[in-house]
Amino acid sequence: MKIKIKNREGVKVIVIISILSFAVMSLGSSGDEDLLKQAKQIFGPLPQVIVSEKNPVTPEKVKLGKMLFYETRISVDGTVSCSRCHPIGLYAADGLRKSIGNNCKLNPRNAPTLLNAAGQISGHWIGNRIDVEDQAKQSVIGPFSFGMPSYEAVEKKLKGIKGYAAPFKTAFPMDNNPLTIDNFAKAIGAFERTLVTPSPFDAFLEGKTATLREREKTGLKSYMEAGCTMCHFGTYVGGQTYQKFGISEPYWKYTKSEPIDEGRYVVTKNEADRYVFKVPILRNVEKTSPYFHDGSIDKLEDVVWIMGKIQLGKDLDKSRVEEIVAFLKSLTGEIPEDVLKIPLLPSTD
Amino acid sequence: MKIKIKNREGVKVIVIISILSFAVMSLGSSGDEDLLKQAKQIFGPLPQVIVSEKNPVTPEKVKLGKMLFYETRISVDGTVSCSRCHPIGLYAADGLRKSIGNNCKLNPRNAPTLLNAAGQISGHWIGNRIDVEDQAKQSVIGPFSFGMPSYEAVEKKLKGIKGYAAPFKTAFPMDNNPLTIDNFAKAIGAFERTLVTPSPFDAFLEGKTATLREREKTGLKSYMEAGCTMCHFGTYVGGQTYQKFGISEPYWKYTKSEPIDEGRYVVTKNEADRYVFKVPILRNVEKTSPYFHDGSIDKLEDVVWIMGKIQLGKDLDKSRVEEIVAFLKSLTGEIPEDVLKIPLLPSTD
Repeated sequence: MKIKIKNREGVKVIVIISILSFAVMSLGSSGDEDLLKQAKQIFGPLPQVIVSEKNPVTPEKVKLGKMLFYETRISVDGTVSCSRCHPIGLYAADGLRKSIGNNCKLNPRNAPTLLNAAGQISGHWIGNRIDVEDQAKQSVIGPFSFGMPSYEAVEKKLKGIKGYAAPFKTAFPMDNNPLTIDNFAKAIGAFERTLVTPSPFDAFLEGKTATLREREKTGLKSYMEAGCTMCHFGTYVGGQTYQKFGISEPYWKYTKSEPIDEGRYVVTKNEADRYVFKVPILRNVEKTSPYFHDGSIDKLEDVVWIMGKIQLGKDLDKSRVEEIVAFLKSLTGEIPEDVLKIPLLPSTD
Repeated sequence: MKIKIKNREGVKVIVIISILSFAVMSLGSSGDEDLLKQAKQIFGPLPQVIVSEKNPVTPEKVKLGKMLFYETRISVDGTVSCSRCHPIGLYAADGLRKSIGNNCKLNPRNAPTLLNAAGQISGHWIGNRIDVEDQAKQSVIGPFSFGMPSYEAVEKKLKGIKGYAAPFKTAFPMDNNPLTIDNFAKAIGAFERTLVTPSPFDAFLEGKTATLREREKTGLKSYMEAGCTMCHFGTYVGGQTYQKFGISEPYWKYTKSEPIDEGRYVVTKNEADRYVFKVPILRNVEKTSPYFHDGSIDKLEDVVWIMGKIQLGKDLDKSRVEEIVAFLKSLTGEIPEDVLKIPLLPSTD
């Protein structure tokens, strides 16, 4: 099987993959300690906050960013906010096959969850966003999302809501002109860097092996043995590499996708990137149906089977699929208390 | 000036109006105690929960109702929930002139706040909803809101999300078949009956007269003397009667409204109801721009002046308008902690 990896730090990824392959192959004993040892070579527990050198997370930025996350009045038709396609109560995804943005425009792809998303190599399914800050910034002029004509137009709308002057100043105290689109992006990015959801699997990784039930541990073994870890590895259980979707067979044979999405080729125009997508993170995957870049599949069991079939060339049987799903459900985490609190927005007048 | 009052309990309203008129006329002394005494004859402090004999509020119903309030997956295009047009962070209004529902359909009127709305005589600007339960129920088949073809279709969607079976059973333990559209409406209604926002004005009414600043007290006096209390009276500062909009002059002369809305005439086809609307509640009015049934006016100062002009036949001067606005701002209340907590919804799969 040919594995194609795209990464800004290609060498590093190859090294990681080698370690992972070794780790999976050497998995022998069924004891908890052995399982933990193997798992720790592949995965890592979540941090409290996903830090960024470019955008240090401060309480003031997070507070402002959370307000802006719910702000519809900066979209061209007044109905779109980050929360519209990433509602926190639905684990920051929207339950739609493809999201619907301003003026009923259909997004080309499914809205991935924003929970833990700041830990990924890039944003969006095709990796055309650098990080969560870039994603927040570009979304306001995205034709399928907020649909605004320019960044200046967004700044003007924000300045029109007088109650935003003070929280921007507080969040960016050194700036003479704090209310800018870049600070808007930084504030939302800072908030998104707090969307971290520790799960039973994290407790397991931290040594509390009894946190996972036997079925979940069996599932973890199956997950590693089947080779899911070749792409879905690391702290975020994915999100670190790009990969062709449909290695052994075309994906649309199983997803019945219409139209066929060329993936990262759209960004790079490089033939090698045709049907290549960013590997999604699997944290909270239980909660974010429907699945795949086009939301074509509803059931997690079907997803696991299809992935085995077209990525690994394996026809996983029902019990193996169910075990893996049991493990995946242990990745469902707790949303921080503060994230679950609705911010009050300044009034329009 | 001719006052037209519509109410299911006409006699009671006339009695209340008589008391109010007497109270306003007898307002003499400028002392806090006198002001409080007068105000207490016209207004009342908010209850903790707005009770209903038909739908007793229980914690289980409120919990389920809060989940359903955020549920988009029961709308025809998967984008509409109660929260879409009534986001809590924007004081349960949406900041749009007229709300946009499923498939970009424009609602005929502005979305009124749901905060304290359960205390009104009826729902909607034209009073074509009996209560909050009826409003919740009818909205799912409303062509401009959720747009579903039938109640059965909504029940089917809810049954398709397996995680709703348990909370419906818990909220309606005596029902053999708890997941029904009527219980959906009762649960949302119960949640909305907790959307009660005590304000500085309530503390004043409870005897803490120092809670209101001098300017707000002056504003309260002006508000009562000007005659605003003839319609905007009671616990909810409005919401108890119907009234013609534009008594001394046509409203559209000032609002520039297009098209002209015939108001309650649409419901009753009674000539006397032409241009008659339900009197909106003024609690949190500071936070719910734009104003009027068509969201035609942005500034609260303009609203107060227009109301003086076309309802009371008075040309209120700038300082009087500003005083009244100062009082109105004292009606901005606190949203209960529990209401500000985002509920997690069951997953689709």
